[in-house]
Amino acid sequence: MLRSRSAALAYSGARAAPRSWASRVIVRGDLGRRARFLSAAAGNAVSVNADRLNRTIHETCRWGEAHRFGPDPTETGMCRLALTDSDAEARRWFVDEMKAQGCKVSVDQMGNIFAVRKGRKEGAPTAMGSHLDTQPSGGRYDGILGIISGVEAVRTLNEHNIETEYPVAVVNWTNEEGARFPQSVVSSSVYAGSTPLADAWALADIADASKTMKSELERIGFLGSVPCSFDANPIAAHFELHIEQGPILEKAKAKVGVVTGGQGYRWYDVQVSGRAAHSGSTPFYSRSDALLCAARIIAKSNEIAKEHRALATTGILTLEPGSTNVIPSSVRFTLDVRHPDIKPDTLDAVERDLIDATFEIALKESELGCDVNWKRTSVANAVQFPPAGVECVKEAGVAVVGEKKVLEIVSGAGHDSCAVSYRCPTSMVFVPSKDGLSHNPREYTSPEDCAIGAQVLLNAVLAYDRRRAAGLV
Amino acid sequence: MLRSRSAALAYSGARAAPRSWASRVIVRGDLGRRARFLSAAAGNAVSVNADRLNRTIHETCRWGEAHRFGPDPTETGMCRLALTDSDAEARRWFVDEMKAQGCKVSVDQMGNIFAVRKGRKEGAPTAMGSHLDTQPSGGRYDGILGIISGVEAVRTLNEHNIETEYPVAVVNWTNEEGARFPQSVVSSSVYAGSTPLADAWALADIADASKTMKSELERIGFLGSVPCSFDANPIAAHFELHIEQGPILEKAKAKVGVVTGGQGYRWYDVQVSGRAAHSGSTPFYSRSDALLCAARIIAKSNEIAKEHRALATTGILTLEPGSTNVIPSSVRFTLDVRHPDIKPDTLDAVERDLIDATFEIALKESELGCDVNWKRTSVANAVQFPPAGVECVKEAGVAVVGEKKVLEIVSGAGHDSCAVSYRCPTSMVFVPSKDGLSHNPREYTSPEDCAIGAQVLLNAVLAYDRRRAAGLV
Repeated sequence: MLRSRSAALAYSGARAAPRSWASRVIVRGDLGRRARFLSAAAGNAVSVNADRLNRTIHETCRWGEAHRFGPDPTETGMCRLALTDSDAEARRWFVDEMKAQGCKVSVDQMGNIFAVRKGRKEGAPTAMGSHLDTQPSGGRYDGILGIISGVEAVRTLNEHNIETEYPVAVVNWTNEEGARFPQSVVSSSVYAGSTPLADAWALADIADASKTMKSELERIGFLGSVPCSFDANPIAAHFELHIEQGPILEKAKAKVGVVTGGQGYRWYDVQVSGRAAHSGSTPFYSRSDALLCAARIIAKSNEIAKEHRALATTGILTLEPGSTNVIPSSVRFTLDVRHPDIKPDTLDAVERDLIDATFEIALKESELGCDVNWKRTSVANAVQFPPAGVECVKEAGVAVVGEKKVLEIVSGAGHDSCAVSYRCPTSMVFVPSKDGLSHNPREYTSPEDCAIGAQVLLNAVLAYDRRRAAGLV
Repeated sequence: MLRSRSAALAYSGARAAPRSWASRVIVRGDLGRRARFLSAAAGNAVSVNADRLNRTIHETCRWGEAHRFGPDPTETGMCRLALTDSDAEARRWFVDEMKAQGCKVSVDQMGNIFAVRKGRKEGAPTAMGSHLDTQPSGGRYDGILGIISGVEAVRTLNEHNIETEYPVAVVNWTNEEGARFPQSVVSSSVYAGSTPLADAWALADIADASKTMKSELERIGFLGSVPCSFDANPIAAHFELHIEQGPILEKAKAKVGVVTGGQGYRWYDVQVSGRAAHSGSTPFYSRSDALLCAARIIAKSNEIAKEHRALATTGILTLEPGSTNVIPSSVRFTLDVRHPDIKPDTLDAVERDLIDATFEIALKESELGCDVNWKRTSVANAVQFPPAGVECVKEAGVAVVGEKKVLEIVSGAGHDSCAVSYRCPTSMVFVPSKDGLSHNPREYTSPEDCAIGAQVLLNAVLAYDRRRAAGLV
């Protein structure tokens, strides 16, 4: 996104932000331990209200609260599947709150909600986007923190009567998780033009095929008329605060991850077919053991991934017929392979090695041999976020927590930011996840860290707004 | 069982049965291709009616018929779980038919049915035992062939007005499969004194815990008053015709397996506990992947079993939470280990090596490590059948199909014969299973092979009866 000499200058300038930009601010609220940090918002020494932020997170978690694991009101996880009644309630709250904050709210054909706060000038808004939907067995931060931080950022701007140069927006993307309608980041992908609207509308509820995304959007009143299209309804940039969902920041004792991109991933369904036979009366030479074959492939996938510095994971495995003394005839398992390389070469190599090894195992090692059927079910190329957004997040992060506590990081998971990053400057702010845990009711990020993240998000948006007004991006 | 010099003589005599004993007989009936074979029943040149035998197998399969796989009336498998209505119907048919054949029928406390045909002398009957119950997804031969062959043997004796020296019996043992009430060969074990009656009565239906073996026996009218006890209600010997359920006879082009014993087995439940985490954002160094750990243990169990010439099989594996991009936190799998050694040394060694290897894998190989919990759920020592019965089967098999088509074999599976072999001379006749397939709707043994098996069964019983009358056993 370095389109001019001045932009290049801004880029190098951001690397060494003048010290005078930083001013000391305090996260307000009654958190027990008050977090103190510096704001990068030069000229906008406005700080988010940490207490209000965290209170809003937990208040809105009443819609979809599930999986209690302790007596404290916040000791539950979440089950707020996209376009269910609980998601609809959270959405209605979001619309009402944003309207109360003076925003203009619109809903597009995929139910994406755009809440826009006016700026001095007309133009596409600088967006803070994330998602209100959760995994069936999810936690209180994934997606939710991103949206509530956007709400808190708007509240903060209003509270301090801060006028931005251009509009800013909070965007709720529909069905990021892909847990109910099985395609993740589906609505941001339609918006970015990489998934056809009709395909997304036709996605069926995995638990009830009679319900599609379109019929459920209609049912809950969120099938909007605004075109779901970056071209027709553009945003100027996209920033997203998200929990890391991994252990890297925590292990490095860092507080802010500046996300430079997202790793590529490929998903596979592997079907191994053998032959059911009695475990006692069938010698090894007469077996075609689908589970033994699958176990060897899974163990090997780990070795191959390590050789390539990639990741490989099997999260689902089912077998038939399933009796202690019957050799499994059929095993189906998933394989999720990831690598941050922007070029697909490494994932290509991993795939080639995996398939070679699999057929070697299936043919030779598993007694009589098994049939193996590979199917690629999902492909996402690695994403490199344009520097214009990344530098804003870095500048904000360094100013808020200091250089030593800021880490550049590649996102391991997919996010709406990855989908829209092809269309506009994009970056993400990561905050630590306790024990690296996520997609789990016990997912946790401390109130202090949530507030740090929200502050960095707000400051990055303000930084981007300033540069945009200065013609630097 | 070689208790006297004369018995020893009989034993050596059986090894080289005089040629004059053999007489040419034909399997009658309209099988398309008529099987011709020799009978070992010296002085009892009686042959079973192959057509009637096979007709009866398929006629009685109407009770519990399931899993159709072709248009022919016999192209189905079976689902006749113990003590269900379909088992009750098959039982009532068996009782009626045996009474019609002049047998005295009694039912014991476990619902075992004894149909006794008088002999010249009083005394405990020589039994032909097997079971009418099937696996939920079973075939038309396992257990059924053994019972119907007993019925056919009695019909044949009646038809030829053959009086045996001692009574002979057909015995239907209850719940051999252990598929509904989860303990296999349970009622023959109670009879042999190795399982307490109260424990067996208390076994609950795996699908409905409110139903026990006792309550279901009562419900279907088969809770008898005869003590379920070898001491109180003895049999003189136990012979059983069964399909091999494996590929050994078929591969060796043999027609009759003379079963010399059953291998020992141990069943384990293995619980691997790791930690759920995101597949994309969790580096290997921060994982505790329960499925990877389980896959490595399963692959290793196969290597260890091979080193010891044992068998190891995992037939059930379940995991949680089960999502493509979530590392499994918990995996539970079964392990079935078998070896024919009469001494437990080999199974002890396999168990020791398995547990050592498992903990090695769990501690070191699986990233952060997993917790593994082993539980032995079932133990059956290897069984060596007493020579008195084995020699009768061998003599009968050699006379019917010739020495080249007879193979000594150790049973891989457990059978009622294994349970009662501690109390009386016991042996089994195996006939080939097509493709070694069993516990499968497509389980198949040709009508000719079924008839060969029934003929060997009858002749073995007659041989035992003669020896018993001569005081040789």
